Amino acid sequence: MRTIDWAGDAVELVDQTLLPGECAVIRVGTVDGLIDAIRRLAVRGAPALGVAGALGVALAAATEPDPAAAAARLRAARPTAVNLAWGVDEALKHLDEGFEAVLGRALEIRDADIAACHAMGERGADLVCELTGRDRPRIMTVCNTGGLAAVERGTALGVVQTLHERGRLAGAIALETRPLLQGARLTAWELGRMGAPYRLIVDSAGPFLLARGEADAVLIGADRIAANGDTANKIGSYALALGARRAGVPFVVVAPESTVDLATPSGDLVEIEDRDPEEVLGVRGVRLAPEGAAVLNPAFDVTPRDLITAIVTERRVIRPDRGETP
Amino acid sequence: MRTIDWAGDAVELVDQTLLPGECAVIRVGTVDGLIDAIRRLAVRGAPALGVAGALGVALAAATEPDPAAAAARLRAARPTAVNLAWGVDEALKHLDEGFEAVLGRALEIRDADIAACHAMGERGADLVCELTGRDRPRIMTVCNTGGLAAVERGTALGVVQTLHERGRLAGAIALETRPLLQGARLTAWELGRMGAPYRLIVDSAGPFLLARGEADAVLIGADRIAANGDTANKIGSYALALGARRAGVPFVVVAPESTVDLATPSGDLVEIEDRDPEEVLGVRGVRLAPEGAAVLNPAFDVTPRDLITAIVTERRVIRPDRGETP
Repeated sequence: MRTIDWAGDAVELVDQTLLPGECAVIRVGTVDGLIDAIRRLAVRGAPALGVAGALGVALAAATEPDPAAAAARLRAARPTAVNLAWGVDEALKHLDEGFEAVLGRALEIRDADIAACHAMGERGADLVCELTGRDRPRIMTVCNTGGLAAVERGTALGVVQTLHERGRLAGAIALETRPLLQGARLTAWELGRMGAPYRLIVDSAGPFLLARGEADAVLIGADRIAANGDTANKIGSYALALGARRAGVPFVVVAPESTVDLATPSGDLVEIEDRDPEEVLGVRGVRLAPEGAAVLNPAFDVTPRDLITAIVTERRVIRPDRGETP
Repeated sequence: MRTIDWAGDAVELVDQTLLPGECAVIRVGTVDGLIDAIRRLAVRGAPALGVAGALGVALAAATEPDPAAAAARLRAARPTAVNLAWGVDEALKHLDEGFEAVLGRALEIRDADIAACHAMGERGADLVCELTGRDRPRIMTVCNTGGLAAVERGTALGVVQTLHERGRLAGAIALETRPLLQGARLTAWELGRMGAPYRLIVDSAGPFLLARGEADAVLIGADRIAANGDTANKIGSYALALGARRAGVPFVVVAPESTVDLATPSGDLVEIEDRDPEEVLGVRGVRLAPEGAAVLNPAFDVTPRDLITAIVTERRVIRPDRGETP
């Protein structure tokens, strides 16, 4: 199954807002339809957003009177993940050559994502065993960084999948990932489909369970990696990094090269998306807080490089804790 | 309004499972009814559990053929908060003197809680201004430690209330506190009733917002304070302590003397209640995770004393970060 793909004259994608109850593929034939799907997180995850950006430019080339203007709107649909802008920009380079050339580049990006996730899985699995000194490590992870966040296989959860396929996964601990529960809804669903042993926890239990020795490594994805190695990722990543450091547990970022943003010198310069208060005030339509409650809803946080043991990409391993930078 | 009180021949308490939608007082006339109310968290919060324990022994003396056996069942209804066992034990000392003596001691404990929360509020408000060097501090807090966790006023949230009554509260940030959302449901409701400025966040955002300078101090309650100063409290407290330390923000525990458990030498010896997986798998009846998901649900964590700036009780201020112990 592919999370996102091109289907003749439209983009097809798994509507992730319906999971885990229903696994439905929707067809998106316009740029504005794709922007809507991105904003409501029907498609999400940094690598998948890169592919969505590129395929969206193909849609623009095929259907829009002013494709460049439509691409600019698409590029700004979500601010934190650099991959969306990167995918749009890569495909836009071929706009003058016409639709077929744009689509060709977009499909290259799709195929490159599939290959990159395979490579990250292999390299990451080797590295985790090396860093932890364990044949069968126990992994803690946040949000969803599996196949649903990419095209076929994921980044951090792709490493977990590779470990599992090698018979080397002792267990996974998935943070539920409030407010939108990508961990409870998506990561648990993917781990169940793999047949991997896992347990679900509330987000705030992560650092404490690391202190109690319940995991050997923390693996996360990334939405943007600054030039100095600081990493923006799902809210809660920073708290896990603090917990991993205190517990002496390796903290590893797994992300494709397209996530590295050399134009952003450090993490404090990354724009953090502040999302709709309703995400915090309720859960899937059930109101939790009293009327009139005010909310702060940062969707991402920034982990400083000194807390990051390693960054794994499809090409290399970077060691920020040793002063290495991307 | 009192959260829990004696009413002629029964215990009356606010059923907190119904808040913030409904503020209903229920009447509990048997020990087993009280145990049920405690287990389903209709009454919760360490100080309120102390009062519930003592009043429960009065119920036992009035209604049970074997009051000591009923009191033992009540004492074990929840394992982590020491106050419940303490309240039961205090009242039990008077069992030989008959019902009136037991009730008298229970009402003393009730009145002492009201006075202690006043004293903690005053002392804590002074201390927070001193530690932060601010006239109008911004406070972050987790779970519910307000009047709903005690009899009339709270512990950590009692300090927030005192600051607000003095016109010295610049704002509060309340963590929603998954899985049972005491922050979103109860703390937000109490802050709203006080007219205090506040914002609600998901738990995992706490450490990051401390790093971004959004709060001047973290205040928490306690379920058990070990002899060395290690403190067991709601899950998520430890992550906040890590975030506070990294941000250079004071981390203050506010709890009555009855929370200090000199019989427990250190936090690693505190039994951590592992609650029902269903609390994590859903929210107020809405299923979040796929069928078959396994869960770890520690309701509390332990913050090591070196991360605690101060412990405020009704009698004193202890400075664990300077090596002081209770």
